[in-house]
Amino acid sequence: MKKYVVLCGGVGAARFLEGLVNVVDPESVTAIVNTGDDDEFYGLYVSPDVDIVIYTLAGVVNKKQGWGFEDETFNCQSILAKYGHETWFKLGDKDLATHIHRTYLLKKGYTLAEITDNIRKAWGVKVKIIPMTNTFVRTKLITEIGELAFEEYFVKHRYQVEVFEVKFEGIENAKPAPGVIEAIEEADGIIIAPSNPIVSIAPILSVKGIREAIISSKAKKVAISPIVGGKTIKGPADRLLKSLGHEVSAKGVARLYSDFLDVFIIDSTDAHLKEEIENELGIEVIVTNTIMKTLEDKKKLASVVIHKI
Amino acid sequence: MKKYVVLCGGVGAARFLEGLVNVVDPESVTAIVNTGDDDEFYGLYVSPDVDIVIYTLAGVVNKKQGWGFEDETFNCQSILAKYGHETWFKLGDKDLATHIHRTYLLKKGYTLAEITDNIRKAWGVKVKIIPMTNTFVRTKLITEIGELAFEEYFVKHRYQVEVFEVKFEGIENAKPAPGVIEAIEEADGIIIAPSNPIVSIAPILSVKGIREAIISSKAKKVAISPIVGGKTIKGPADRLLKSLGHEVSAKGVARLYSDFLDVFIIDSTDAHLKEEIENELGIEVIVTNTIMKTLEDKKKLASVVIHKI
Repeated sequence: MKKYVVLCGGVGAARFLEGLVNVVDPESVTAIVNTGDDDEFYGLYVSPDVDIVIYTLAGVVNKKQGWGFEDETFNCQSILAKYGHETWFKLGDKDLATHIHRTYLLKKGYTLAEITDNIRKAWGVKVKIIPMTNTFVRTKLITEIGELAFEEYFVKHRYQVEVFEVKFEGIENAKPAPGVIEAIEEADGIIIAPSNPIVSIAPILSVKGIREAIISSKAKKVAISPIVGGKTIKGPADRLLKSLGHEVSAKGVARLYSDFLDVFIIDSTDAHLKEEIENELGIEVIVTNTIMKTLEDKKKLASVVIHKI
Repeated sequence: MKKYVVLCGGVGAARFLEGLVNVVDPESVTAIVNTGDDDEFYGLYVSPDVDIVIYTLAGVVNKKQGWGFEDETFNCQSILAKYGHETWFKLGDKDLATHIHRTYLLKKGYTLAEITDNIRKAWGVKVKIIPMTNTFVRTKLITEIGELAFEEYFVKHRYQVEVFEVKFEGIENAKPAPGVIEAIEEADGIIIAPSNPIVSIAPILSVKGIREAIISSKAKKVAISPIVGGKTIKGPADRLLKSLGHEVSAKGVARLYSDFLDVFIIDSTDAHLKEEIENELGIEVIVTNTIMKTLEDKKKLASVVIHKI
């Protein structure tokens, strides 16, 4: 049985994984998930990307928005607002159970990785899900209105502010969570999900040892472009690439992974970039439909990826 | 303007206060509330009696059950159960906001008294509400099935186990919360609400200095019997009185307060006890309807009490 490692952000990665578990044995998949977006709200520790991946694979996610629970209520936050708390980061009543549970276990001394494993098992999720590190890392954005935590930038300000710099606070001391390096070393395929390269994949690759392990791994390394026709499917990837001086195209993304990437999957819309990327970066390019609307789309995209591993 | 102090447990006290604020200025009332029932669930600090009093005075309480919010949902706990947590102590989604907020402020270093004041103000409650102490006190019951925290005994086991002893863990080090002694000293009337004498009023009276302050206060001291016809209106007062060797009657309750009580209000059902209590304990007894079903009942009972102060 071949083994797969998928580097994951939130919604895009979760949708890709949904397809992947339909074309390979879920137990052959290890998802390594970004925790740079983690934050605390009302004293509760929230891991947005980890939860999106778990809820999606558990089949309980709100499919339309891509995060949180289907059939969710927001009664708790309505009262928290009365107590003067900010509620721009929507936490539903069911969702809060996850944050209460995670915070409770953290206080008891469990690590983020142990807690993630506990939660995914509670949902019967067979994909192994590992946060990139047990150390608290925080993605911070230096913007025209000052320094913002990722969720402040992403949700509160709807990424409508200019970003000058992105940093991952705490990354110097972050070690890969137990199992991360082993999974990379044992993998037949390492897949970079169609997630934001700047704020979802970069934090993972910045944890000491992870990028190096990927480079030296014998696995086939395949990435899916989150940029289609020069635009992002969801979120601020295009804006961030531009602000930080990268080319806002599939090619701009490929360049960020060019030190390890074997195969790059781009959307049919970008077919004209194939030769350019192959010639300039020496990466094999596969052109296919990367827009994941139906389960069929997701399965097809996963099949294309798996076919190269 | 006369000043009133009311020693309070949960539901019975809250219902009495509802009447009281309709017959006197709410700002003339200070409620000193039992915190022996406090407990932690999922790492969240819960103050059941304080919350019952606040929710009731805020007009948001579930009137039928006497605790929690009206129109409440339990979506968070349904997921907490999935994570393996016990859910016999029902915490609704709105209610959880209070516990999240209190826990958040405790972690920030605020005291129970400061937090209680913050919460009651958020609800626009004008009665001053003070927890009996800022120290964590826990009512523990030694029972036939071992030691139980109050809520385990009361909710989980529905008080259907035999109790041998009641103790207030931490009481030796508990000091009255700021404002408690001052309120007692300045009061014209000190009212013991129709709450459980063993597990609601006794913890308050056991905090160092409170009983002494009441004894030496010049205020008129009035109590309402929670025992009617030898039975309790709600909860385990009758069972506990019996188990601990007290007489299960209004007289048994009066005896517990006889070192400071001036006036005891008993229900018409117990009219025959009036002379006995007056003669044996030297306490003036008023006979009236003490069953608080309607707001009118509550106001009438409060008027009877106020009339004696």
